[in-house]
Amino acid sequence: MKIAVLGTGTVGRVLAGAFASLGHQVTVGTRDVEATMSGADPGAAREDSFAAWAATAPAVRLATFAQATADADVVVNATNGAASLDALRSAGEEHLAGRVLLDVANPLDFSAGFPPSLFISSADSLAEQIQRAFPSARVVKSLNTVTASLMVRPHQLADGQHTVFVSGDDADAKALVNALLTDLGHTDVIDLGDITTARGPEHLLPLWLRLMGALGTPLVTVKVVR
Amino acid sequence: MKIAVLGTGTVGRVLAGAFASLGHQVTVGTRDVEATMSGADPGAAREDSFAAWAATAPAVRLATFAQATADADVVVNATNGAASLDALRSAGEEHLAGRVLLDVANPLDFSAGFPPSLFISSADSLAEQIQRAFPSARVVKSLNTVTASLMVRPHQLADGQHTVFVSGDDADAKALVNALLTDLGHTDVIDLGDITTARGPEHLLPLWLRLMGALGTPLVTVKVVR
Repeated sequence: MKIAVLGTGTVGRVLAGAFASLGHQVTVGTRDVEATMSGADPGAAREDSFAAWAATAPAVRLATFAQATADADVVVNATNGAASLDALRSAGEEHLAGRVLLDVANPLDFSAGFPPSLFISSADSLAEQIQRAFPSARVVKSLNTVTASLMVRPHQLADGQHTVFVSGDDADAKALVNALLTDLGHTDVIDLGDITTARGPEHLLPLWLRLMGALGTPLVTVKVVR
Repeated sequence: MKIAVLGTGTVGRVLAGAFASLGHQVTVGTRDVEATMSGADPGAAREDSFAAWAATAPAVRLATFAQATADADVVVNATNGAASLDALRSAGEEHLAGRVLLDVANPLDFSAGFPPSLFISSADSLAEQIQRAFPSARVVKSLNTVTASLMVRPHQLADGQHTVFVSGDDADAKALVNALLTDLGHTDVIDLGDITTARGPEHLLPLWLRLMGALGTPLVTVKVVR
């Protein structure tokens, strides 16, 4: 498949690399290609340079949000939650119409420091904000509850015995995301229901952040016991 | 120990019965003893009558919030989250001073129907509201992430292989709660840190409610995988 991964940070790179390894045709989307490659992009500057990473993943292309999404089968929102709606608007509503839009972002508000709170109330979610802004996209929330490396290598922790969730209004889109999750190695995927159920996994972040703090590692997640 | 369990609903009854079975001297606290025993209390009327339950637990006494807490070693807040501050005010600040106050309630807002949202933001918690209102109480948040029967019989699900959390500012109070949790059968207790970390477990409810919906059972919880 053609997969557009929006976002050049850790999550975007890790997902782009993993999908490329699985044989998909992956394009990373960014606001400004030159700025991203030169390291002038303020988002990318916080981490190792994108150019250095890109050299290790020659099959992955880099393009603008609009170019990356223009012919994608799946669009992955791996941008910072606070910037997600802007990034998707840059991609262009016409490029999102009918697309499976896998949203892995979190609505984190760092304005009062760490740990962040959420910029949504418990009666809303970032996934719903995206679905409302782009009603013809087929938004599926998933993977936001695990750190980047667990998204793509779940077996590195407890032999993969942990849970990820999917939420979305479109059954076919959820089935496609479910297949991608299976390809990545996830074995316990719970379909919570429609897009409003994304409130659940997004509100796991306040607990996840404190587990990371108490246990001293981001390699922590949950197994749903039932 | 002398344990005051505030609240006459399912959670209060289940905890009161379990603590009595463990040999503790348990008093259930209520707003109006006569109303609770006659079934006129609107809270109790939604379930089987309190009087019928009380007949099955003869060791458990019933008293007003103030009487129940007056000489308690531990006060358990098992009231409806929206009514918790009022119930604790009825108990009286003087009866909560220095007390270990185990808060198991959830800040659920049913004003828009089911599933409820939370009446706190992600920058607050009910436990913190209680600690702020009663600064001399030693508030410990725990057990709010599991249904009543799992609070007291954790082994009925996955041989007890699931996690509960404690949050609080007072190390001795957390140690006492930890001992009570162990007596109830909990084997995986994670100390998240100070009382602000209660935001984590309280914000698990939006996910828990949707898991209950998707899986069709309240006998669902999480194991923290690390």
